[in-house]
Amino acid sequence: MIKVSIVGVTGYVGLELLRLLQIHPEVEVKHLLSRSQAGERIADLYPQFAGSSLADLRLEAYEEADLTDSDLVFTALPHGISQREVAKIYKQGIKVIDMSGDYRYGDIEVYENWYQIKHEFPELAREAVYGLVELNREKIKKASLVANPGCYVTASLLALLPVVEKGLINLDNIIIDAKSGVSGAGKSLKEAFIYNEVNENFKAYSVAGHRHTSEIEYVLEEVARQEINLIFTPHLLPLKRGILATIYTDLSTGLDEDGIIDLYREYYAGEAFVQILGDKLPELKYVVGTNNCQIGLKYDKRTGKLIIISVIDNLVKGAAGQAIQNMNLLFGLKEDTGLTQTAFYP
Amino acid sequence: MIKVSIVGVTGYVGLELLRLLQIHPEVEVKHLLSRSQAGERIADLYPQFAGSSLADLRLEAYEEADLTDSDLVFTALPHGISQREVAKIYKQGIKVIDMSGDYRYGDIEVYENWYQIKHEFPELAREAVYGLVELNREKIKKASLVANPGCYVTASLLALLPVVEKGLINLDNIIIDAKSGVSGAGKSLKEAFIYNEVNENFKAYSVAGHRHTSEIEYVLEEVARQEINLIFTPHLLPLKRGILATIYTDLSTGLDEDGIIDLYREYYAGEAFVQILGDKLPELKYVVGTNNCQIGLKYDKRTGKLIIISVIDNLVKGAAGQAIQNMNLLFGLKEDTGLTQTAFYP
Amino acid sequence: MIKVSIVGVTGYVGLELLRLLQIHPEVEVKHLLSRSQAGERIADLYPQFAGSSLADLRLEAYEEADLTDSDLVFTALPHGISQREVAKIYKQGIKVIDMSGDYRYGDIEVYENWYQIKHEFPELAREAVYGLVELNREKIKKASLVANPGCYVTASLLALLPVVEKGLINLDNIIIDAKSGVSGAGKSLKEAFIYNEVNENFKAYSVAGHRHTSEIEYVLEEVARQEINLIFTPHLLPLKRGILATIYTDLSTGLDEDGIIDLYREYYAGEAFVQILGDKLPELKYVVGTNNCQIGLKYDKRTGKLIIISVIDNLVKGAAGQAIQNMNLLFGLKEDTGLTQTAFYP
Amino acid sequence: MIKVSIVGVTGYVGLELLRLLQIHPEVEVKHLLSRSQAGERIADLYPQFAGSSLADLRLEAYEEADLTDSDLVFTALPHGISQREVAKIYKQGIKVIDMSGDYRYGDIEVYENWYQIKHEFPELAREAVYGLVELNREKIKKASLVANPGCYVTASLLALLPVVEKGLINLDNIIIDAKSGVSGAGKSLKEAFIYNEVNENFKAYSVAGHRHTSEIEYVLEEVARQEINLIFTPHLLPLKRGILATIYTDLSTGLDEDGIIDLYREYYAGEAFVQILGDKLPELKYVVGTNNCQIGLKYDKRTGKLIIISVIDNLVKGAAGQAIQNMNLLFGLKEDTGLTQTAFYP
Repeated sequence: MIKVSIVGVTGYVGLELLRLLQIHPEVEVKHLLSRSQAGERIADLYPQFAGSSLADLRLEAYEEADLTDSDLVFTALPHGISQREVAKIYKQGIKVIDMSGDYRYGDIEVYENWYQIKHEFPELAREAVYGLVELNREKIKKASLVANPGCYVTASLLALLPVVEKGLINLDNIIIDAKSGVSGAGKSLKEAFIYNEVNENFKAYSVAGHRHTSEIEYVLEEVARQEINLIFTPHLLPLKRGILATIYTDLSTGLDEDGIIDLYREYYAGEAFVQILGDKLPELKYVVGTNNCQIGLKYDKRTGKLIIISVIDNLVKGAAGQAIQNMNLLFGLKEDTGLTQTAFYP
Repeated sequence: MIKVSIVGVTGYVGLELLRLLQIHPEVEVKHLLSRSQAGERIADLYPQFAGSSLADLRLEAYEEADLTDSDLVFTALPHGISQREVAKIYKQGIKVIDMSGDYRYGDIEVYENWYQIKHEFPELAREAVYGLVELNREKIKKASLVANPGCYVTASLLALLPVVEKGLINLDNIIIDAKSGVSGAGKSLKEAFIYNEVNENFKAYSVAGHRHTSEIEYVLEEVARQEINLIFTPHLLPLKRGILATIYTDLSTGLDEDGIIDLYREYYAGEAFVQILGDKLPELKYVVGTNNCQIGLKYDKRTGKLIIISVIDNLVKGAAGQAIQNMNLLFGLKEDTGLTQTAFYP
Repeated sequence: MIKVSIVGVTGYVGLELLRLLQIHPEVEVKHLLSRSQAGERIADLYPQFAGSSLADLRLEAYEEADLTDSDLVFTALPHGISQREVAKIYKQGIKVIDMSGDYRYGDIEVYENWYQIKHEFPELAREAVYGLVELNREKIKKASLVANPGCYVTASLLALLPVVEKGLINLDNIIIDAKSGVSGAGKSLKEAFIYNEVNENFKAYSVAGHRHTSEIEYVLEEVARQEINLIFTPHLLPLKRGILATIYTDLSTGLDEDGIIDLYREYYAGEAFVQILGDKLPELKYVVGTNNCQIGLKYDKRTGKLIIISVIDNLVKGAAGQAIQNMNLLFGLKEDTGLTQTAFYP
Repeated sequence: MIKVSIVGVTGYVGLELLRLLQIHPEVEVKHLLSRSQAGERIADLYPQFAGSSLADLRLEAYEEADLTDSDLVFTALPHGISQREVAKIYKQGIKVIDMSGDYRYGDIEVYENWYQIKHEFPELAREAVYGLVELNREKIKKASLVANPGCYVTASLLALLPVVEKGLINLDNIIIDAKSGVSGAGKSLKEAFIYNEVNENFKAYSVAGHRHTSEIEYVLEEVARQEINLIFTPHLLPLKRGILATIYTDLSTGLDEDGIIDLYREYYAGEAFVQILGDKLPELKYVVGTNNCQIGLKYDKRTGKLIIISVIDNLVKGAAGQAIQNMNLLFGLKEDTGLTQTAFYP
């Protein structure tokens, strides 16, 4: 049994980790750390755990908890704050999977520029492995610190990697129009996220400036070995979970729609968590609650555009599930252990 | 491995059975029967199964499928239609768990009166065991045909059994004000269930006439050994899953609120799927996606009323999950095998 | 033209007043007061007013605004805070319609007991007229200070007045099971009201203790001239607007369902905003966006219970619309002026 | 008073027309025609009209109704079916505003190609005026038959007209990523539109093939006097009303963001129903329930793209409201008569 702890358990990502770890057959949960609610029993705060074997676990304060009995710690903390906590745990020789943006960039300058936060552990950032399994599987197996990818980024990269890697699209005209559920914003107590403001509403936000733009570009540039400037526009959906990205690219190859679909199927052959749909297009409900990414493809002859549609659950493949997939790799387990659920439907 | 098949797999209950069985460690799914979509691959119809080990299963027509290799068949069919299919399968010596109302009443007259359908297999109805595990555990273990309880009924009975069995309330003044999500209506293609008619709407329906009234009374009368006429009012919530029942009773005992809570805790001690909350009241989000029933209790001194609030997921504890709980009993498995998930949150 | 101002315009009730007053043919809006956002242009804060004739109005601070050019001020402030603001304005000889609970009880003791707030203007509370038009029309016409009724209270009283006034029910066994949309909670920045916590969720709250219990009892006791203790249970619906109350009473008369329906129709004959539905039961979508209350009635022979179902829009008939109805009376206008919209559907 | 009738009143567009006409100060509603529910009282079918002055109107069958006392008929019928009904009414010398796609193309070939329906009244199609008021105001004033624009088309054209007319963008790389609420699909009784399938779901549909592509191109080509092939991708939002279009274009001019915003403000100066927002981006909740279109603009220096965001209520500015705006023009009324509501919020 892998002994794991969670730092920052009361956020949506922390709780989703707990939900998934609770049914993972090879995991024993040791410590749940929380800044604001230390001392409380998890089932008193979150009665969904009342019937669970974890019901009686109590949250612990950061300062008081001793994590040295853990094989692995998940840190689910805000950007900027995570840096230091990760470093502290890592220095104790414990493996860490970090959910924040703090260790996703080997090049600290890009991070500091887009996040406007100073990075105090640049050498650690260079050591961290970017945890997109489908891209970095072998590196992750040997890693001690994994930076779990951003949610929008995961949906976008899995959609774009095949055509970027194979050089089939014009890299100067990529448009990612992405839509996310509200859980992506975490438990923010802002007027914009209260029910009355969200239900029956829809909007774009952070247009031409969202941080995930830089993370998508950063990874694609490594793959393409050239600079990429793309458009990424996030929108807020009136629903809880899920990201759908509609991606517009100029295809620079003779392949038709079927050829492209075949190419994607080949690229992702053997992947447990990526499915290329054929004549159906992916919908959020096909993946919500699961670690799956589903991808659909349409080629528009009139304009020569390839439209790629990609869906994930932002809290699973976009966060907690992908983190557990990383954990499975780190500890030599079958990659889909504890992650074989199908979507929560209806 | 238990070999199971599902008749009527494309309804919400059938698909929920498949979702849960897919991760059940002791089950092998053999046949999926469907009237309208025989021949199709399950993952083509329901792409949420595209990444699953069941992806390539094909639906079979009723007439053509040979179920004799199954240890157990779940029938998820409309009331009235289920009767005959159940009988047909049962006569082949296969165990059956029926999700419809057809075999829930040993007394055919009550059934025929409330359902306005003739019952053609009265002897089989008498043989069937009513599958509310918390009430009938020992009988179920020896059963060959289990009638899985109604969703509203499950939420209501678990809330009322302790006080009715112990004779602590006035049986002439029980009011059940129940609220259900839309999945309770199945995939009905009626104007009343299209999105535009449901979202931002709320209504009562079948007031003073819903069939589940009779099922609640039928079971409670056996427990109380006296006639009971109660009020049951269902409402349609603008959400997909979940039932919350607010139950009003006149307490005829000297117990205070704490005493009542203790009594419920004792009554359900050892039950894996019933949790009595203390100072928090249950909410749908604590149980959605799980086989749990959570119960909260308030005593109003000013009026002498005990208010019982009970929540379940209508598709899990109210249908597919309870059916699998029954299956586990039938086959000597630990009762919570495959059913230990915590709620889908947020 | 009636010159009106709003104190507390940025809450949901304040903004709903503005939405309705903006299309009222006899009203000129003078001042919009706000504690937190003084100086801002209304259309910059709430772009829904960008195309309106009011777009350029600027919010004013309480201390700086001179309201003496107003014929009427609506105060839309939290309970407790409203007391003093109302008194201040009233003393300047301006008519006031107060949306809070502060002036709804002539008997200060009841208020102080249920609200746990000291009332500093008891004489003014006695002078205020309770603004349920269908009950107090003649008094309102001559009033200078109107206490606009609570939202749950409006739905409950309109449903109960006919049978209570005529003595047709047992007053010791009234149960009001009420369900409200989230706008009833105002713009509270609490975790419980963020989208992720509300959508696909449902719960009861303030069971056996909500303040509106006292307001319903207070008014009914005056009508019935006897003490009444009833049960009022509010629930939170995953929708924005609307209250549906399901009310259970013991009928103590020989009338059948049709007789009761006739009695209600007679009682509310001539009322512009109360409709008694016949064989259809009321749904929220029939009244959302309007000042209407719709009532449905079912008699259950088996138990002798009369079930009354009542629906309103909590922000219109339960707040801003009823306030404008009161305003129309105060200024001798036709009672439905500016309030003749039909429901926002779908 | 203008005497108007509605053919096809029981669809969402027909009912929205009735909702808006009911409060229009210059309109008298004469006939409501319905194929399926002739003979019924409108308030019995749609109890939201129970308190309205129109409550007692009865639906009439097509064959039996005599529309010759109407000054204007709105036809709210499915594409293909509308053709003939419009022609029949028009030939009686009655003005018609048609909500379908049948008369939107002077060039019948384009219509027949994209709709795959034969047009039997080509001369009438050439006579019809396309009812986008902001483009065709003067022509509409003199028209007898107005083809009301499509909902997606309205949102897209109002966003694109300024830059297309002034030649400021590359016409070969226009991408319209549009998202609509479910009411856009009408009352379709298809599984895809039932509540359980829509809530908490999101998807693209008709990718690279939606008919509105042709309508957008058709109008823009007339304005630009050159062929245009653009990408239009519709998505289904889990909400009832509203369209948001995110439009990506390559700006071919030296203007910066402020310059573009000024240009749009100038272009739409004097328009009652188009608002250019400044530093806020438009959200659906700013326009739902109104005839307004709000537009926001962002220029992304890194890629040289202009991102235009446009929002409307698909049933109002995208259908019934725009139709009434057209009616006001046809009959010489002030263009915003009966249409001055602000958004339904929250």
